[in-house]
Amino acid sequence: MAFKYLKENLAREFFRDIFSRIRCPRKLSAPVIDGLIESSLRGVDSHGVRLLPHYVQAALIGRINLSPRLTFKKTSLTTVLMNADHTFGIAAAGMAMEKAIQVARRCGVGCVAVYNSTHFGAASIYALMAAKENMLGFSFTNVEGLVIPFGGKRRFLGTNPICFAAPCRGEEPFCLDMATSMISWNKLMQYQAKGKRLEAGWAADKNGKICLNAAAANALLPIGGYKGYGLGLMVEILCGVLTGMPWGPHIENMFPVDGKKRRLGHFLMAIDISKFQNVGAFKSRLKKLLTELRSVPPAKGFGRVRVAGDPEKEAYRVRRSKGIAVEASDVVRFRSLARKLKIDEQKYSFLKS
Amino acid sequence: MAFKYLKENLAREFFRDIFSRIRCPRKLSAPVIDGLIESSLRGVDSHGVRLLPHYVQAALIGRINLSPRLTFKKTSLTTVLMNADHTFGIAAAGMAMEKAIQVARRCGVGCVAVYNSTHFGAASIYALMAAKENMLGFSFTNVEGLVIPFGGKRRFLGTNPICFAAPCRGEEPFCLDMATSMISWNKLMQYQAKGKRLEAGWAADKNGKICLNAAAANALLPIGGYKGYGLGLMVEILCGVLTGMPWGPHIENMFPVDGKKRRLGHFLMAIDISKFQNVGAFKSRLKKLLTELRSVPPAKGFGRVRVAGDPEKEAYRVRRSKGIAVEASDVVRFRSLARKLKIDEQKYSFLKS
Repeated sequence: MAFKYLKENLAREFFRDIFSRIRCPRKLSAPVIDGLIESSLRGVDSHGVRLLPHYVQAALIGRINLSPRLTFKKTSLTTVLMNADHTFGIAAAGMAMEKAIQVARRCGVGCVAVYNSTHFGAASIYALMAAKENMLGFSFTNVEGLVIPFGGKRRFLGTNPICFAAPCRGEEPFCLDMATSMISWNKLMQYQAKGKRLEAGWAADKNGKICLNAAAANALLPIGGYKGYGLGLMVEILCGVLTGMPWGPHIENMFPVDGKKRRLGHFLMAIDISKFQNVGAFKSRLKKLLTELRSVPPAKGFGRVRVAGDPEKEAYRVRRSKGIAVEASDVVRFRSLARKLKIDEQKYSFLKS
Repeated sequence: MAFKYLKENLAREFFRDIFSRIRCPRKLSAPVIDGLIESSLRGVDSHGVRLLPHYVQAALIGRINLSPRLTFKKTSLTTVLMNADHTFGIAAAGMAMEKAIQVARRCGVGCVAVYNSTHFGAASIYALMAAKENMLGFSFTNVEGLVIPFGGKRRFLGTNPICFAAPCRGEEPFCLDMATSMISWNKLMQYQAKGKRLEAGWAADKNGKICLNAAAANALLPIGGYKGYGLGLMVEILCGVLTGMPWGPHIENMFPVDGKKRRLGHFLMAIDISKFQNVGAFKSRLKKLLTELRSVPPAKGFGRVRVAGDPEKEAYRVRRSKGIAVEASDVVRFRSLARKLKIDEQKYSFLKS
């Protein structure tokens, strides 16, 4: 794949320019820009800046609401229901996690369920917010049905991710951010485009049979059979059932973009570590645990043992200096967006082919 | 396998007899008996009545404390730290979940972290307690290191289970109770005993290489590679790091039983559904979701699609009338325990060979 490296600051300026052209309030655009850039810097390209043209298109076509009436209903000491009114999921979920953290600082735990939302990008954005405040952070979202329930023939639940983060001494927080399917839909698309062979257990054909031919793949498979299926269902109960939102096959698809509201639900939770243990001790203990795991001798074929989030930390170190990696096809999309919005292309050298 | 069916009431009487011989207070023994019998009725034999002789032996040898000083330290409106003082994990975790439910009813959410504990049986016992009170229940525990970290050669983390339960209209609560490894150590032992071939991805040999020969298997593998490994680590952070307890390889093994304290940690959480949605609506919506999933056409080789907890519900219906299934080898252990404690064997017909 051909990559271009965008300097973080220039990318940020370009994105601000775009959002100001579509008259998006800074309160909404700032967290979206930060979330996408941060995800790209962490190497999570599937959920990074490449989503920007998609989000802008969704706003222009009326799926995403640029003038939302955001409401927070405090329903108990620790629980909040947030109506995202179809605005950017990243903006809504960020505010929701801020609220959860604030509640947790006072009460020990804070839970915010978000309804009427849209795609919230990488789940790690929110769990990491909590971890940076010395809390345990959890974030979940539902998405449209792409995954086969164990033993089934047709896809039903989404890739419904689970994300958990915790602060650690001497390094960025521990962060697990995983779809409950073996691979993402995005990865399947990449394999289809390249005609690459899938690994067994990743995807199934239209009859629910495991298939290795990417072109024949029609659905994703859950991790660990009934276990990943059960975890995806847990996420759906938290994000779809509890919030009153639709689930799985009843959710509007992300692609193609049209004016239909997606009505996604998210569930965000923060737990204040200091209510259980001295935060310094916790962070030292976690560092010790991670160090022990990284010291486990590797099996044949592996260079070393890593822990969840290590690849992202490695990407971050590289990209902070080198810039954000963007595929040539994304540059094309950025350029066409710039033209459509009449943005001065000369300002942004990376838009040149 | 040769099974005997024990009538629930007779089993209960026998177990009470045993606990009274070892002078175990009813407050501690009652939840253990209930938890084990309930797990057996639900078909979870690995965590059912067969554990009873093990628990009694652990009490007699001094690993499990029959006169604990249980303390609950309320550290915020919603968080509690419980010292189980090495008593039965089932008794301690049951009290902890009761506390979490009580807190959640008032504050929306309740979290109880338990330290200095022992084996807590099936994680479902506690999550179901919450679901029966119209709450979302979560339960987690750490255990000794049996699972290989993704890419590693040696086992490190435990099978660290995740359990989640939610109430559902017209049937017992939805309940997902799963180890974060592909199979349990118990299942591996059964395959070793029978010389059965393992499935790929279940276990690894002493070099961390996936193996199909049960006799050569030395460690379990996580579900979905780095994902299940990450989930096991999340559970370890909640149960080991947060509680100040040891983790993975530093935890005393369950077998063989000796006087060493295991110092396990548990994390129990209840979330009050009524703080987010009308409970009746929630239960109807969950029923609708589960019904839709059960209606997905099955793939070839599958009779039908089920949801997490369905096998347990099916076993429960059968066993409530037929009795608890117990293997012949467990009857032998029950009999030898009865003799050791000078219990009148005539009272318990099932003790006869």
